[in-house]
Amino acid sequence: MIFDEEAIEIIEGKNFAYLATSMADGSPHVAPVWIDRNEDTLLINTVPGRLKQKNVSRDPRVTISITQEKNRYRHLFIRGKVIQQTKEGALDHINRLSRKYLGKDYPWDDKNRIILRIKPEYVKVLE
Amino acid sequence: MIFDEEAIEIIEGKNFAYLATSMADGSPHVAPVWIDRNEDTLLINTVPGRLKQKNVSRDPRVTISITQEKNRYRHLFIRGKVIQQTKEGALDHINRLSRKYLGKDYPWDDKNRIILRIKPEYVKVLE
Repeated sequence: MIFDEEAIEIIEGKNFAYLATSMADGSPHVAPVWIDRNEDTLLINTVPGRLKQKNVSRDPRVTISITQEKNRYRHLFIRGKVIQQTKEGALDHINRLSRKYLGKDYPWDDKNRIILRIKPEYVKVLE
Repeated sequence: MIFDEEAIEIIEGKNFAYLATSMADGSPHVAPVWIDRNEDTLLINTVPGRLKQKNVSRDPRVTISITQEKNRYRHLFIRGKVIQQTKEGALDHINRLSRKYLGKDYPWDDKNRIILRIKPEYVKVLE
């Protein structure tokens, strides 16, 4: 398991992840996202055509920063790659994320969703 | 003024900024940072030799994401460039940031500091 207990606590908490990707011109992009875990991979859910989805389709390398809300100076850093993009199960997944973060099913209209599955290559909890 | 009232409220709040930069191999990096504003520029304070400082020395393009803590679905997105790096006033500046975020002077030992001054080119509040 690439994630230790501390990393899992931060991922499973209601903490936003900041997903950095690379733009076509090589400049960096970053956006806040909901996140959860499936075994050794991380799952993010977006809409096809959004910047982050276009960016990882061209260059799958991502870096993720997650700050623990209950201890703002505890921080999880992850470097990895998007290894899969799938629409299968993506609506169930956004509802699951929404229950985690909002406590209810996904309330907004953008229901054409896609799951980005990320394989971490480097994981570190910083304090 | 490139920042409107909403943007200033988010920058001046005790909200962490997530600073994305590009690594030497073109992959994205992101790190949480303290931030404040000087007129039309943003100031970040780091230690010479840290990844983010090395990255912006090679490629000054940055993207910043700031989530408002009191409303986690209000979010400031900034694209810009590091236009200056200076050690002058950097210790005063880290103390000022520390008073903003921690309510006291900077308590840690890494006092060899440098200010990164960022000129925003695109600023947007997203909700």
